[in-house]
Amino acid sequence: MTTDTVQYDPLAEPTAHRVAMLNRDDRLFHIILAQQFDCELIETMCRLAEMIRNIAESKQGNRFLRSLLSHKRAMLYFIQPSTRTFLSFAASCQILGVPYNEVRNPSTSSEIKGETEEDTVHVLSQYFDLIIMRHPVEGFAERMAYKLNSMPRPIPILNGGSGKDQHPTQAMLDMYTLLRNFEPRLADRAHPTLSGNPFAGKTIAFVGDLKRGRTVRSLSYLLAQYAGMRLIFVSPPELGMGEDIIEYLDRHGVHHEKSEDLNEVIRSCDAVYMTRLQDEYDQAGESSKIDYYKYSLTVEMVEATKDSLVIMHPLPRRQELDVRLDTDRRAKYWAQVRNGMWMRAAMIAYIFNVDATIIDHYKTSYTA
Amino acid sequence: MTTDTVQYDPLAEPTAHRVAMLNRDDRLFHIILAQQFDCELIETMCRLAEMIRNIAESKQGNRFLRSLLSHKRAMLYFIQPSTRTFLSFAASCQILGVPYNEVRNPSTSSEIKGETEEDTVHVLSQYFDLIIMRHPVEGFAERMAYKLNSMPRPIPILNGGSGKDQHPTQAMLDMYTLLRNFEPRLADRAHPTLSGNPFAGKTIAFVGDLKRGRTVRSLSYLLAQYAGMRLIFVSPPELGMGEDIIEYLDRHGVHHEKSEDLNEVIRSCDAVYMTRLQDEYDQAGESSKIDYYKYSLTVEMVEATKDSLVIMHPLPRRQELDVRLDTDRRAKYWAQVRNGMWMRAAMIAYIFNVDATIIDHYKTSYTA
Amino acid sequence: MTTDTVQYDPLAEPTAHRVAMLNRDDRLFHIILAQQFDCELIETMCRLAEMIRNIAESKQGNRFLRSLLSHKRAMLYFIQPSTRTFLSFAASCQILGVPYNEVRNPSTSSEIKGETEEDTVHVLSQYFDLIIMRHPVEGFAERMAYKLNSMPRPIPILNGGSGKDQHPTQAMLDMYTLLRNFEPRLADRAHPTLSGNPFAGKTIAFVGDLKRGRTVRSLSYLLAQYAGMRLIFVSPPELGMGEDIIEYLDRHGVHHEKSEDLNEVIRSCDAVYMTRLQDEYDQAGESSKIDYYKYSLTVEMVEATKDSLVIMHPLPRRQELDVRLDTDRRAKYWAQVRNGMWMRAAMIAYIFNVDATIIDHYKTSYTA
Repeated sequence: MTTDTVQYDPLAEPTAHRVAMLNRDDRLFHIILAQQFDCELIETMCRLAEMIRNIAESKQGNRFLRSLLSHKRAMLYFIQPSTRTFLSFAASCQILGVPYNEVRNPSTSSEIKGETEEDTVHVLSQYFDLIIMRHPVEGFAERMAYKLNSMPRPIPILNGGSGKDQHPTQAMLDMYTLLRNFEPRLADRAHPTLSGNPFAGKTIAFVGDLKRGRTVRSLSYLLAQYAGMRLIFVSPPELGMGEDIIEYLDRHGVHHEKSEDLNEVIRSCDAVYMTRLQDEYDQAGESSKIDYYKYSLTVEMVEATKDSLVIMHPLPRRQELDVRLDTDRRAKYWAQVRNGMWMRAAMIAYIFNVDATIIDHYKTSYTA
Repeated sequence: MTTDTVQYDPLAEPTAHRVAMLNRDDRLFHIILAQQFDCELIETMCRLAEMIRNIAESKQGNRFLRSLLSHKRAMLYFIQPSTRTFLSFAASCQILGVPYNEVRNPSTSSEIKGETEEDTVHVLSQYFDLIIMRHPVEGFAERMAYKLNSMPRPIPILNGGSGKDQHPTQAMLDMYTLLRNFEPRLADRAHPTLSGNPFAGKTIAFVGDLKRGRTVRSLSYLLAQYAGMRLIFVSPPELGMGEDIIEYLDRHGVHHEKSEDLNEVIRSCDAVYMTRLQDEYDQAGESSKIDYYKYSLTVEMVEATKDSLVIMHPLPRRQELDVRLDTDRRAKYWAQVRNGMWMRAAMIAYIFNVDATIIDHYKTSYTA
Repeated sequence: MTTDTVQYDPLAEPTAHRVAMLNRDDRLFHIILAQQFDCELIETMCRLAEMIRNIAESKQGNRFLRSLLSHKRAMLYFIQPSTRTFLSFAASCQILGVPYNEVRNPSTSSEIKGETEEDTVHVLSQYFDLIIMRHPVEGFAERMAYKLNSMPRPIPILNGGSGKDQHPTQAMLDMYTLLRNFEPRLADRAHPTLSGNPFAGKTIAFVGDLKRGRTVRSLSYLLAQYAGMRLIFVSPPELGMGEDIIEYLDRHGVHHEKSEDLNEVIRSCDAVYMTRLQDEYDQAGESSKIDYYKYSLTVEMVEATKDSLVIMHPLPRRQELDVRLDTDRRAKYWAQVRNGMWMRAAMIAYIFNVDATIIDHYKTSYTA
């Protein structure tokens, strides 16, 4: 199988071959696809993120974390503009003491002298120990991972979002946000573990532009690893969840239903995941005919919900999420942003094999 | 009082309410306004800046300083272009070991997806422990400070210049530059203190575009806290000091006078503060009719001055300040630049409550 | 001699005066010109680069290196776009623990307010301890070095490439790449030294646009310090090596010859230095008439070469260097990139006088 024939289907179940290409010594080396994460790896990453967050609370803990990877250097190769994902990764590097550098404006690069982008990335790989890559071309990160594998000094690639398909760190931070709120044992300082299936019996609504929203699609994929929950898709008929996801959920025995009335649905929800209209993908302004804000979440609607409702939004938001909810205790979208930072730190720590060191430190600090 | 009704008058004496909103536990939390600084806080900051500068002279001292705040992360949110203020803050962060990141080009931000800037800053606040903000909109920094105060995890905002009104770190570095030169006890390694009013009996000339120069206006405000000095305003008649400042000085009993002859005035001066023509604020090229460089300072003029004359300029300069003065011992404008770095480090240290630790370290190192 | 009258001839043998101006206490202070390096300094720098590379292999070694200069701050003043040289210097700073900052986009600078660039650099010098400068104007770095020398707080300037003339760190990394491969004792962990003249009897081909390629010209200059080798210039007749270099080599007794047939030449080579067509310097598209890729290096051509052939290229490349060579053991152009990072770290360490500390550490670690 040559790298050029790889089909980039974010929902395809990973072939053993593809996953193996991204591993080294039977362990994640590159992180490219959400499909690399099964329940065990999801739990491992969420526990690690939770431990790092707790350790970082003290100045001594911070010092421990910053000493872990200060001998590594990271390149943030962000060819697609993205301030918040960029800064989340940058902060994650800082938490672990990883000096980093960035390439964000391809026009200042020497590509103008006629170099291929493969050569550019290859040159950068000489200076760094990790490339965190956000790229508009689908499959580019995976292709570079294969290419670097063939070199004398391969370094890992961490996918920070490629084209419209894969954004595994976003999917994982969403899982972490749900687990933090659904699973009391994850926040147990002595034993941050999961008890059985924390999603069993939970009701989760996905609201808005489900057709084109990358985050809800990837999150559906990861939730299907667990199953046991009830998913409700609330959207304008034109923007419903894609048939490919529907079939995927059916295959995994995940209960799902549709609704057009968020007000009715919200009362039974344990979590609601709001999304904005992705009108940048419009072909000819077709979104303008849709009454999108009929599916908005307001302060008034939240009054009759469960007290433990988890309100999420990948941000940026528009009017679909009432700013008056910002200070509500059920609003978890700011925490969700911060969770991304901890999850990304966990992934970087895992890639460099310091997860066991973190677990040891954590046990020593909190179990006694 | 809602945040939207705040009037941004750089010269208004701070209402108790406004200052209290920026404090926490009766201590500066956000630094937004020059009006937050009274004589006691001015002295505290200048002493702290002086101690940090002295400690930083040794490698061991550097290590101590860099360990103080390495567990914090700062966001330099510089929406208004400013290389030198940006770098001064960046260096200050580095001195204290604070990892930082930056947002400088709003066009790469996700605001393009329709997000409000309040949301953007709010998201950034999730990754960082301090936001240093330079913004073209007057009052924006203060408004965000109030907004963050209402959130579960408020973080301080340090104003690096907002619109045409407030630039408190510039005003404080100017005070520090004057005090370093007027007050021998500030440089006393055992006891960096002030003795009485170091400005008593001093003559200070402000020269140039006093009407539109933000720095001379703010500095006038802070000097008025001390009073006791004689201020001389030397400017083209069209660019004289504003009536609001004049009234303010009168109210505080500060002696002031006007002159159009710098050559005559300079002999009696203890300090001269040169400024450039702010013609970017011209409505219709009216500056072009003014003989601005009649008020220039040259090598020849400095020959007959006091030996201890302090020549200042906020830079950048044009022809109003002779380049041949650069190597003159009375030229303090390069030191003034460097003073800004120490003053900003002092402010960051103060915000994070490590000022007492610095004072302790200093006493141990220099008093013995 | 005023600074304005300096003639910037990259091949001029350095006058004693010019070199002395860049020294302090009889030691390199500013690094501006390839001509500052004689055989002894070349060897010193290459040994230091090799030691730093070896020390950096362990986490403990990394920590030692990062502690060396963490009390210094560097300014990367890159007015000429250059991603890879920028990142190489940035990584070098990170290896030595030097916090750095950058000015890369002059339009965000306050030069727009009418400041001279001398003033800008002067202001920056207040915040930093080293300026690494890449500038489009020939001689600007040297002029600023002289200017800073006259100030109360002079700091060193390291030339990262000025105009079309000088790029001393590139020339030195090329020397380091050749020496690493020609000289087994450089990689001797107990004694990284040179034995006699490692270039004696070696055959080195320079291929391509020798007329306008800055790297081959500078490298010729440094090789001439050693002599003893045979240089072969392979190029289209229109792009042959300049007469000034030819005369220089003659003066130093370096054997050189011309060829137009790379295929024939390559079999006798110990090293081949490929270069791309510098058509950005075309006056009127004259390069388009040249059959440049007649002088390409392919996988097939390499089959009959010495097993120890060193294939170099300053990158970026176009078609003159076959991508199928990338995984060949003789391809040293990726290593060459990485060598630049170690060489730049060596230069920064040398400027700040920590070379002896590194040598001591190295001896303790590897000689026992």
